[in-house]
Amino acid sequence: MKPGIPKGTRDFTSKEIQKRRYIISRLQSNFEKFGFLPLETPSFENLDTLTGKYGEEGDRLIFKILNSGDFLGDARKKSPDIEQWNSKNLTGIIAEKALRYDLTVPFARFVAMNHGQLAFPYKRYQIQPVWRADRPQKGRYREFFQCDADVVGSTSLWYEVSFVLLYDAAFTSLNIPVEIHLNNRKLLAAIAEYAEIENQLIDFTVALDKLDKIGLDKVLEEMAAKGISQDSIQKLVPIIELSGSFEEKIAKLKDILQDVEIGQEGIKEMEFIFSSATSVGLQSAEPVFNLTLARGLDYYTGTIYEIKAKNVSIGSIGGGGRYDNLTEIFGVKGVSGVGISFGLDRIYLVMEELNLFPESTQVNKQILFFNFGDQESLEALKLIQKLRNQNIACDLYPDKAKIQKQFTYAEKNGIQFVAFYGESEIASESVTLKNITTGEQETLPASGIFAFINQ
Amino acid sequence: MKPGIPKGTRDFTSKEIQKRRYIISRLQSNFEKFGFLPLETPSFENLDTLTGKYGEEGDRLIFKILNSGDFLGDARKKSPDIEQWNSKNLTGIIAEKALRYDLTVPFARFVAMNHGQLAFPYKRYQIQPVWRADRPQKGRYREFFQCDADVVGSTSLWYEVSFVLLYDAAFTSLNIPVEIHLNNRKLLAAIAEYAEIENQLIDFTVALDKLDKIGLDKVLEEMAAKGISQDSIQKLVPIIELSGSFEEKIAKLKDILQDVEIGQEGIKEMEFIFSSATSVGLQSAEPVFNLTLARGLDYYTGTIYEIKAKNVSIGSIGGGGRYDNLTEIFGVKGVSGVGISFGLDRIYLVMEELNLFPESTQVNKQILFFNFGDQESLEALKLIQKLRNQNIACDLYPDKAKIQKQFTYAEKNGIQFVAFYGESEIASESVTLKNITTGEQETLPASGIFAFINQ
Repeated sequence: MKPGIPKGTRDFTSKEIQKRRYIISRLQSNFEKFGFLPLETPSFENLDTLTGKYGEEGDRLIFKILNSGDFLGDARKKSPDIEQWNSKNLTGIIAEKALRYDLTVPFARFVAMNHGQLAFPYKRYQIQPVWRADRPQKGRYREFFQCDADVVGSTSLWYEVSFVLLYDAAFTSLNIPVEIHLNNRKLLAAIAEYAEIENQLIDFTVALDKLDKIGLDKVLEEMAAKGISQDSIQKLVPIIELSGSFEEKIAKLKDILQDVEIGQEGIKEMEFIFSSATSVGLQSAEPVFNLTLARGLDYYTGTIYEIKAKNVSIGSIGGGGRYDNLTEIFGVKGVSGVGISFGLDRIYLVMEELNLFPESTQVNKQILFFNFGDQESLEALKLIQKLRNQNIACDLYPDKAKIQKQFTYAEKNGIQFVAFYGESEIASESVTLKNITTGEQETLPASGIFAFINQ
Repeated sequence: MKPGIPKGTRDFTSKEIQKRRYIISRLQSNFEKFGFLPLETPSFENLDTLTGKYGEEGDRLIFKILNSGDFLGDARKKSPDIEQWNSKNLTGIIAEKALRYDLTVPFARFVAMNHGQLAFPYKRYQIQPVWRADRPQKGRYREFFQCDADVVGSTSLWYEVSFVLLYDAAFTSLNIPVEIHLNNRKLLAAIAEYAEIENQLIDFTVALDKLDKIGLDKVLEEMAAKGISQDSIQKLVPIIELSGSFEEKIAKLKDILQDVEIGQEGIKEMEFIFSSATSVGLQSAEPVFNLTLARGLDYYTGTIYEIKAKNVSIGSIGGGGRYDNLTEIFGVKGVSGVGISFGLDRIYLVMEELNLFPESTQVNKQILFFNFGDQESLEALKLIQKLRNQNIACDLYPDKAKIQKQFTYAEKNGIQFVAFYGESEIASESVTLKNITTGEQETLPASGIFAFINQ
């Protein structure tokens, strides 16, 4: 049998893992500096916790787990008319659990379940894999990590400000130059009201969301195709084309939306967030007021965020926003929240493309002690034990093989240092160390090893 | 709808996560010091990669993933005679993927798949969750982490020695006093030969493995029930009852097994491992030559390990051994290996019981800045940004609520420090900090905050 792995999944070897860990540890440390504490939820949830939360397409993409035991016998009992079975109605009977599709719904489920115990506002971050039965393609996998931070139970705009600062801090720490695109669903609702297409808000935002990808003409075409009138489109175009600084855009918008109450609200929120964030001072990220930013997810109700990496054309590497009623589906009302997400796989690609991974993630700073026989190996292990206690990674080649073979092994495994600790070195209590990368070689006392490999 | 989670699964909140991370990071750092590099495999594998590797009972406990799309239509096409369907024969048709059941088989699959590229001996460690449809009970979950280190492609006994040292280093770093029980399958085979029960080796080892739990009499009863003759049992008893130091046991065993070749081999291996490990010097673990240690898994062929925590009755907290032919099932022959595993959940329980988690894992060393209004909050955020850049976790309470309410929020969330940064503090560029745990309170310049919270 020739082994393989399921399509859309990946094995990660140490090189990729070191880099992924580098990103994750930076995100984690920034989440914690911003007062978020970790939460981890189970990989699978009850199926009915997940279904109906991601739309019909989403439901199809949820991986369901087959019930253990005699699932078919149970199904025959519960639904004896086999002729009536189809893949859809049988699923709920033979699969009661499903793999996590995102981190948001399990978070909402957790908040609803523990509503009585949590002290609100409740902040958590979560970095875990999710699974989707999507068609795999470049950069899209069936198993991938999401990195989310959310706070629920408060409508304070200071959290919106904090997330701008958090995005800035995180991408500054990763050295990735980014734009933080900001918009507000209230402004989009106001624009729809102004253009008299309140009943077509979703069609309008879905089309608008594609502006970056397909351009203005195609967006207008799509709007027309969805039945948005030419009168309305006439009113939309100047808004979509608004340009200038934040202050200029706001000024024009104030004017255009002067009679739309929800528009004034959105403007006030946007002004507060922009002015507060810039007054605190962003370290490297550039805030951009992007009126055409819509984001697909229906559940956003206020501020929305999207992160674009500069100098790379890779789409969004993060996003989020304010939502209301996330936990309402689980019977807990009035829990407003705001949250953001980081796209690990895309951040990884950006860092590769811009060559931003530090050298420490790319070397195997290990010392391989050559094996000169059992007696020497025993002495080597004594020294190795001391070095390991100084946090130096060491290994002993397992057999007394030819030096060339041992050397090749080190090279093939990307091991940076080899150590000769044979009879004469043991007698003189010294080690000969060679840095394979630089070719540098030195004989030194054991106490000098730490300095040699860290020079 | 009242939300819940599937039985046998857990949500982990920050307190548990901090402690679990503490254990994991110690294990990880020791794995790396011993020259192991990380590997991560997908959460699910092709079903046929997993089935047939864990015995019939194991196959039942594998969580299968329902195919996406019209699985029922596909099944009707592939196997039209619906009357013939049963849960067993239908599973392979409607579920082509399954959740990882352990880390060993995916590792073997990885090695077999990448056989041509890897430089042997190949060492890897892997810390990932696995899933089993076991009946949940105290300490047994349907989702749990395994922490494994293995090396394949070498028969060198130096690796056996290294794993003794690794167990010692890891448990020393966690402050857990342990015994490292050692035995060798060759000795068990030799004893079976000596007692003339070669054909009942499995019955013999399965019964022997229960010695700790059920005692000698019951073990002998079980052997008799399995058809092991009284003559054989007579020969086994003195071996099972062997006592004394390592040297004494070995001496007696040498005598008893003098005519059994595989026994002499096992003795030689055991002597080499014991003498090398003790000569290098264990830091806190106690090696125990335990002739009655058998371990359930069939695939071990040489040395076997099992870790018992001292002063706690919780069973084994780790184990492993030498195996041959792990990758043979995937078409790659002659890859001998040896590996060990750490039981995260049980280690956690031991550390709780012995009160071994350091204080750092049990506090939320965060500063909550009280909110005195928008103007003060903006100034607070400027200071907070500076503190975060010094790696201090900070947060701003989101609303200008009553001080008592803000204080209660800090307490309920286990936040250790609160900061007053109101009008007068802002004017004098100072902060009033209070340590909620100790009650200590001090007004100091921003530059003194780091020292205050780390004192």
